[in-house]
Amino acid sequence: MIDQVRIVIENATPAVDGGRFPVKAVQGDTLEVSADVWKDGHELLKVAVMWRKLDLSELKPHAEPQAPDLQKKGWKEAPLQSEYALNDRWFGKMTLDEVGPYVFTVVAWTDFYSSWAEELRKKMAANQDVTSELLEGVALMEKVAVKAKAKSAILEKIAAIKAAKDNQAKAHIALSHEVAGLMEHNDPRFDLQAYDVEIPVWADREKARFGAWYEMFPRSCGTDPKKGTTFKQAEHRLEAIAKMGFDTVYLPPIHPIGTSHRKGPNNSETCNPGDPGSPWAIGAKEGGHTAVHPDLGTLADFDHFLAETKKHGMEIALDIALQCAPDHPWVKEHPAWFSHRPDGTIKYAENPPKKYQDIYPINFETEDREGLYAAVLDIFLFWAKHGVRIFRVDNPHTKAQSFWEWIIVEVHKRYPDALFLAEAFTRPKRMRRIAKVGFTQSYTYFTWRNGKKELEEYCNELFNSELKLMVRPNFFTNTPDILHEYLQKGGRAAFMIREVLAATLSPSYGIYSGFELCENVPVKEGSEEYLDSEKYQVKVRDWDKPGNIKPLVTAVNRIRREHKALQLGDNLRFLPSSNPNIVAFSKATPDYKDVVVTVVNVDPYSPQEGMVTLFDKLFHHQPNYLVCDLLTNAYYTWHGQTNYVRLDPRVLPAHVLHVVGGA
Amino acid sequence: MIDQVRIVIENATPAVDGGRFPVKAVQGDTLEVSADVWKDGHELLKVAVMWRKLDLSELKPHAEPQAPDLQKKGWKEAPLQSEYALNDRWFGKMTLDEVGPYVFTVVAWTDFYSSWAEELRKKMAANQDVTSELLEGVALMEKVAVKAKAKSAILEKIAAIKAAKDNQAKAHIALSHEVAGLMEHNDPRFDLQAYDVEIPVWADREKARFGAWYEMFPRSCGTDPKKGTTFKQAEHRLEAIAKMGFDTVYLPPIHPIGTSHRKGPNNSETCNPGDPGSPWAIGAKEGGHTAVHPDLGTLADFDHFLAETKKHGMEIALDIALQCAPDHPWVKEHPAWFSHRPDGTIKYAENPPKKYQDIYPINFETEDREGLYAAVLDIFLFWAKHGVRIFRVDNPHTKAQSFWEWIIVEVHKRYPDALFLAEAFTRPKRMRRIAKVGFTQSYTYFTWRNGKKELEEYCNELFNSELKLMVRPNFFTNTPDILHEYLQKGGRAAFMIREVLAATLSPSYGIYSGFELCENVPVKEGSEEYLDSEKYQVKVRDWDKPGNIKPLVTAVNRIRREHKALQLGDNLRFLPSSNPNIVAFSKATPDYKDVVVTVVNVDPYSPQEGMVTLFDKLFHHQPNYLVCDLLTNAYYTWHGQTNYVRLDPRVLPAHVLHVVGGA
Repeated sequence: MIDQVRIVIENATPAVDGGRFPVKAVQGDTLEVSADVWKDGHELLKVAVMWRKLDLSELKPHAEPQAPDLQKKGWKEAPLQSEYALNDRWFGKMTLDEVGPYVFTVVAWTDFYSSWAEELRKKMAANQDVTSELLEGVALMEKVAVKAKAKSAILEKIAAIKAAKDNQAKAHIALSHEVAGLMEHNDPRFDLQAYDVEIPVWADREKARFGAWYEMFPRSCGTDPKKGTTFKQAEHRLEAIAKMGFDTVYLPPIHPIGTSHRKGPNNSETCNPGDPGSPWAIGAKEGGHTAVHPDLGTLADFDHFLAETKKHGMEIALDIALQCAPDHPWVKEHPAWFSHRPDGTIKYAENPPKKYQDIYPINFETEDREGLYAAVLDIFLFWAKHGVRIFRVDNPHTKAQSFWEWIIVEVHKRYPDALFLAEAFTRPKRMRRIAKVGFTQSYTYFTWRNGKKELEEYCNELFNSELKLMVRPNFFTNTPDILHEYLQKGGRAAFMIREVLAATLSPSYGIYSGFELCENVPVKEGSEEYLDSEKYQVKVRDWDKPGNIKPLVTAVNRIRREHKALQLGDNLRFLPSSNPNIVAFSKATPDYKDVVVTVVNVDPYSPQEGMVTLFDKLFHHQPNYLVCDLLTNAYYTWHGQTNYVRLDPRVLPAHVLHVVGGA
Repeated sequence: MIDQVRIVIENATPAVDGGRFPVKAVQGDTLEVSADVWKDGHELLKVAVMWRKLDLSELKPHAEPQAPDLQKKGWKEAPLQSEYALNDRWFGKMTLDEVGPYVFTVVAWTDFYSSWAEELRKKMAANQDVTSELLEGVALMEKVAVKAKAKSAILEKIAAIKAAKDNQAKAHIALSHEVAGLMEHNDPRFDLQAYDVEIPVWADREKARFGAWYEMFPRSCGTDPKKGTTFKQAEHRLEAIAKMGFDTVYLPPIHPIGTSHRKGPNNSETCNPGDPGSPWAIGAKEGGHTAVHPDLGTLADFDHFLAETKKHGMEIALDIALQCAPDHPWVKEHPAWFSHRPDGTIKYAENPPKKYQDIYPINFETEDREGLYAAVLDIFLFWAKHGVRIFRVDNPHTKAQSFWEWIIVEVHKRYPDALFLAEAFTRPKRMRRIAKVGFTQSYTYFTWRNGKKELEEYCNELFNSELKLMVRPNFFTNTPDILHEYLQKGGRAAFMIREVLAATLSPSYGIYSGFELCENVPVKEGSEEYLDSEKYQVKVRDWDKPGNIKPLVTAVNRIRREHKALQLGDNLRFLPSSNPNIVAFSKATPDYKDVVVTVVNVDPYSPQEGMVTLFDKLFHHQPNYLVCDLLTNAYYTWHGQTNYVRLDPRVLPAHVLHVVGGA
């Protein structure tokens, strides 16, 4: 018989590219699911979301969306409800209990009993003869009974209806609560229809969304600028980092550093004996991407460092930079993995007219792609075996996206709790695709968004557009490559401003060490590079340097941990303020029990004042209410929507206000 | 080798549901195509749109999007260009020369020669040694030459480069215009990458988008209310209809009308001898959906009527209502196509407590679905063979959408110029799906949108959202079922207002006869039904009734034909006006050579005045310019963006202004 589809199911959300890529979520999340569902005619529908945790073995890179197989085991189900006013749109929720891959779909079927009952009631109300309708009802019940668990109970009811003395009495039974319940619980879903595809969802662990990162060079934890520190010697810094409230310690590459064409201080082409070189020039005779730099110690020292990090309640993020110094063992072992010039020499990195002779890019067009892919996978698995679960990936936008999709699936098959941060400061379409193929988080343009308008526009794009389904920003205030002019010129206030913005706008944020000390000297005017950059030399710091903002950083990190509202991204709402230098935004938990309003003066030079306007839900429609500045513990009584603020950057350029309640 | 995809192609547009349903277009259209395209690394790309006219035999209902098969014959190609500012978005155009099904896709490949040439130029500018680069260039040329048409020309150039005295001379040849041209025209597209899917497009004939419809009951063209007219007797009306400027004559069902439970005047349940019954109660002993009502004449008379219509430059739209009167031959021949009550009788239509005993709905859940589907298809094909190419389909939202998708494909396979108007006054999600499955046009909520704000919102949704890719509105001012209160109460001015709005907002519009005579008496207060509705009785009219708006209708239809701008939909732009009763909008051709600005006072009771603001392109940035009211031939000199208008509904409630030019 010709297949006839009478129930239409369209536009199921959330979905990325109609199900081509997974929606990102976090273990424990309740996901709102909706779809357009309708059937020709007047019958009533039942609609449900069905979801299933996939086995890790089912994971595939570049998987086209599949039609749902409802025969598989493990489907869970929850009802979707419609609101007539919203025109055939149905809404419901699913929960993600575990870390890993899920799929969901939407199903619908005709509620034949309720449709019949509704018509019967209307006809009885109009005093029509319902003899025929009652016979139809009995026929429906008989059809349902055939395969019903409660078959005998249904048959009893049928007998009772048949035995009843008149139509009124028959209808009374047929429309009874008991019969309705029997029909609902034994509904064979005669015409069950499923959405075209299964939509994939990836549930990460909490850290994927919420984390405070601290980037540090383990060699720069000592007091002698001539001599780098080892992992052992660096361990003493972990306590201080943990005390500031960070939970993730991100290490630049820890591997042997090449000696050929090694760069000297300030990226100089002349390198003197003792210059340590850039950690991103990976590989020397001591080994490559799976070795530890002898100057840092042994693999066992790394393991110990990682264990110490854990003791402090933090974890390690490791940098994976797929490039080689000329001394990397791969260069000799796998010459096919590199590009060769016609004269036989290996091509170094170039951005004409610039040359980077200390770096060989890997040639992913190699004939030995199997070998190369396997070797790269081995790097990730090697460090995962050593307990690393966060990888900060260097320049993923310069490699094939299909490669990343493959790598991430392969790692996730073995370590579903692995997280990947994409270091791709690149155009939006590329950043988006990189997120789609599986990167957990992305660096963003945050460092270059310092004014009120550009912050609002950019954050709305990240947190309040469909991007939120795939891209998770990690707002770094600075990196070893990016010391923005705003920090160079704005002084201590600028550092405070950027700390508060990064940490309260985005649930994931990070600083690169020295930020807390307000280090702000560029290598030259107009450059975003640091003077005497840690990339090329050992750095010695006074960690208690006067003017440091460690107390603020510590406070902000504590506030983030104490306030669930700050641990979410898509709850960001910018609030109107009367001053173009005052940025204001709220974050609230879905139940509005935890409400935080952040107000920042983005002008690091002058005090600014103005009126900030909240929406009613934030203060539970109360005429007067208390707000507590979590940075200072000061309480203010606010009245209605619009209230006055004044922020002096010489003192503290921000309020992080907790809406306490009635005053 | 592991498949590695380095060129990313995403978000190709236009597309409906990622290519699941065809984009609607019109023969002769130039379609703007765009996509996000990028490749990791710094090489330059070439991007193109490829499109192909499908053979009608390739048409399939419910076809999932396919990967493009570039080996097939008939692909055409045009380049896509990128604008850096738009971030990896590429833009181009394709043209649709024929009526019927097309597919398009986007392809991209690396421009290895230009990438190499750009790098070479940079290095030479930096005075670097380019010996190695030149060798690479020669290697590339040799690789291209292998399968090149211009193989010998390329080999000559290679020899010349090799023979040149120094790198400067070699580069001069390698970068020459001739070599660049050879490399471009012989580009083997080494790494050609195509978009995931072919996106279907359906190109209709012009009438699908642009048409003026006139609905008429052929039986109501005479002077005796007791006696309906035949097709022959109705032919005299065609000249008058054509003179008013209509191009499509839509006839309600022309089939034998059932006698059982026939309804009397004003939908009365008592029917007296001589009452003609409703044309939608289809079928009697004389035949069903492929028969002509004997009162209208013979099939030959219909053929003659159709031929006469053509002579007047118009065509016929036929009503297809899939329901039967109890006397329809199908009832006896195919009882399985109807639903039966437990007592064996056939179910009539009901909307409890209302009963429609004169109509049997067809049961599409029949076991004999093959037979039913074939019979319905035969109806369409029967009338198509008689020259009908427009079908106005009654209530498509009460049948399975998969059925319509099948029917429309089957008809289109044989008659790709067939058009289908969906009579589905239903919720937006349903209207949208009906359009997606193939209906050419849709009735809309236009009759219920009379205020300025609701008109603007609704028309923006129809013409300026993604809906424009799939839904083509046909704005009827009235139908035999819908005489809106606005017309009932607003008098002649209301009719003029609605005529101008329908005809200038939407490229397709229609009136139901009597509208031009300002017929406005409802059957009762609060009803949208006509008193003495033509649905149940023969109507006699004075076609020159005083106060008729035929001159306005005629003028509006002439203006529509003369101004290409009014023949398009997605060029609608609402313009700010200072008066909440004055609606203003522009329509322009893409080159802004034809610009029409319509200004309507939607208050039928009082004169309204105010300022209307144009955007600069509409008047070509001129300080002063002439506008000509095409309804009155009055000329006005306008100054800059904002100008004064005053519209008196007792005289003429609208301006249809042609922006003439400099004054």
